[in-house]
Amino acid sequence: MSSTTVNYPEEFKGFAISDPSEWSNPKLTSYVPKNFGDRDVDIEIECCGVCASELFTLKNEWSKSELACKSSSYGPKTQCVGHEIVGKVLKVGSKCTTGVKVGDRVGLGASASCCAECSRCEEDNEQYCKHQVGTYAGRYPDGYVSQGGYASHVRAHEKMVFPIPDGLESHLVAPLMCGGLTVYSPIKRSIEDTLAKGKTPHVGIIGIGGLGHMAIMIAKALGAEVTAFSRSYSKQEDATKMGAHKFIATGVEKDWSKNYFDYFDAIINCATSTVDTDVDAFLSTLKVNKKLISVGLPHVDEKLQVSPFTFLQNGVFLGASLLGSRKEAIELLQLAKDHKFAPWVETLDINEANVSQALTRLNAGDVRYRFTLVGFHEFFGTGK
Amino acid sequence: MSSTTVNYPEEFKGFAISDPSEWSNPKLTSYVPKNFGDRDVDIEIECCGVCASELFTLKNEWSKSELACKSSSYGPKTQCVGHEIVGKVLKVGSKCTTGVKVGDRVGLGASASCCAECSRCEEDNEQYCKHQVGTYAGRYPDGYVSQGGYASHVRAHEKMVFPIPDGLESHLVAPLMCGGLTVYSPIKRSIEDTLAKGKTPHVGIIGIGGLGHMAIMIAKALGAEVTAFSRSYSKQEDATKMGAHKFIATGVEKDWSKNYFDYFDAIINCATSTVDTDVDAFLSTLKVNKKLISVGLPHVDEKLQVSPFTFLQNGVFLGASLLGSRKEAIELLQLAKDHKFAPWVETLDINEANVSQALTRLNAGDVRYRFTLVGFHEFFGTGK
Repeated sequence: MSSTTVNYPEEFKGFAISDPSEWSNPKLTSYVPKNFGDRDVDIEIECCGVCASELFTLKNEWSKSELACKSSSYGPKTQCVGHEIVGKVLKVGSKCTTGVKVGDRVGLGASASCCAECSRCEEDNEQYCKHQVGTYAGRYPDGYVSQGGYASHVRAHEKMVFPIPDGLESHLVAPLMCGGLTVYSPIKRSIEDTLAKGKTPHVGIIGIGGLGHMAIMIAKALGAEVTAFSRSYSKQEDATKMGAHKFIATGVEKDWSKNYFDYFDAIINCATSTVDTDVDAFLSTLKVNKKLISVGLPHVDEKLQVSPFTFLQNGVFLGASLLGSRKEAIELLQLAKDHKFAPWVETLDINEANVSQALTRLNAGDVRYRFTLVGFHEFFGTGK
Repeated sequence: MSSTTVNYPEEFKGFAISDPSEWSNPKLTSYVPKNFGDRDVDIEIECCGVCASELFTLKNEWSKSELACKSSSYGPKTQCVGHEIVGKVLKVGSKCTTGVKVGDRVGLGASASCCAECSRCEEDNEQYCKHQVGTYAGRYPDGYVSQGGYASHVRAHEKMVFPIPDGLESHLVAPLMCGGLTVYSPIKRSIEDTLAKGKTPHVGIIGIGGLGHMAIMIAKALGAEVTAFSRSYSKQEDATKMGAHKFIATGVEKDWSKNYFDYFDAIINCATSTVDTDVDAFLSTLKVNKKLISVGLPHVDEKLQVSPFTFLQNGVFLGASLLGSRKEAIELLQLAKDHKFAPWVETLDINEANVSQALTRLNAGDVRYRFTLVGFHEFFGTGK
């Protein structure tokens, strides 16, 4: 048995760090998985997307204390990330009810568990469950700190494990599990009233990166007219190929907002930081009572400054959205299949050098538009 | 003819200032009304509420240039305020279509005109019309700057003139025209989905002042369970009498928000300033995708600081609401009649000393909870 093969189910293996200074160089590590719950599912991972939120966790920028894994009640004191997972079900808990079966191809996003019984869980908002546990760096009730998908296997609550329709390629599905779902949920929720009236909603997408490029495709597939916002014209051609109907370079077209009074039914802010965004200008272009919704995650200390007067001009709202529900994940996968859209993905075979390359280049914004780590079966000796 | 009688229709008389330094001492002034439009209505004023936004206009705190009236294309260079008006229709334009008739008792709020043909006007959002003109200090297309309701008469577009049902007392209706409508609109819009499901919405009202005290009554009449928020317990007894089911003194009960996780369907912020409000705490108590809506108007330079992370915990929104529509004004008046609620009003006979008293005491927060200036017929020799 080579050093990369895995002694499942006692052991999982993944790329992990033990200190934020190592954020760009996770090392192959062996670790004990969390105790298997009776609604848990084990997934043998086939591939995993690389999401910008991984950088925040590895650099520990969302926390003011040490890495959560350091205080895990059992299991590793190292942190493996990754939460855009596609793989095959190896084991199903005795009390599972979703119909998930051994051998199914499934996806897992940024959330690995929830209480499954509170009102939020029951109303298709389990991503907001108070007991929701992140797929990595999340703390389970028993104190175990979760480990992510740059790994041989992952263990998660069945509610967070989504069946993947045939006909979709795994490495293109992976980025939908977090990034895609994160934009699908707010777009869908904010335009369904307009769609129900038989009208074409106008959706603005700020930031043409990992999230934004999927938002363009998804909004279009849902029936919206899509306007892409970027600082310069450098991504205009790409945005048009992704399906954007209009493109506005906000750094160049200084007075753009004056021409878009009462235009948008929803604006989705996919930029990581809003510090340099002229929020007031975007708000001024919304229709009455509509919303600007942020999905990009900022630094924990970041504060947003807005003039209360701006909201008054059209009675609009500013807020954020977190991930999406199981119901929405299943809808999104079907939408991708029906409308034949897929994220623009650069694949990298999983190994130490390529994990480092993915993180380093993502940190530098050097990816158009998403990495998927592949070749897990070959590397870990799985998939047999 | 005494100096207070009015040579209508050539002349209106009202209490006005010519400089912000005179904010607390408007003087009786005669002025030319705006040219009569074919959808305009003249109202002989019976009484007028005193709204905090008057202070902002008189002190010129919403603007960085001189008083708008100084650049009026014709008419007075002085400013008369007042926009919670009840009176009798004296004249109706030739192209009026709302059915308003000479002799009708009507109300006029903070908005005196709109284009009446844009999509916002057609969709019951005329308060957000780009061509909306404030009842005072608003600029008409012909350059005339509007004059308010501390006056003998007022001229306004019929769409902004609301019929008042019999059985409601004028001095108690007046504060509903701006303050009441301003809270009715966001409460109604933010709880109608919950009401439609047959559930009891939980509504929080921040700030038990002029706006907040009406918000409590209105939310209750609409079928909500109402929680009143104030800094101390000093207004608890009043809030309970107004109909609040719960009362939280945020300055005393420091950890109050922890007990209200996932509780509110809407929170209406009626405080004038949000600088000292812990917005994050309030946001954390909202249900998923619900809203905190500000209706109090801040200083023009005020900026709101929020942590983007807060919104993520429950996917919530922060925004504002401006006035209400004609449709909502009519609904509100019927609601007040059906549920027999009325603002708590202190009346003052209109004259120079009492206008000064109302403004000075309102500025000091010395009113529980609303002034209505009355006795207009006697003072101006009208109502015959």
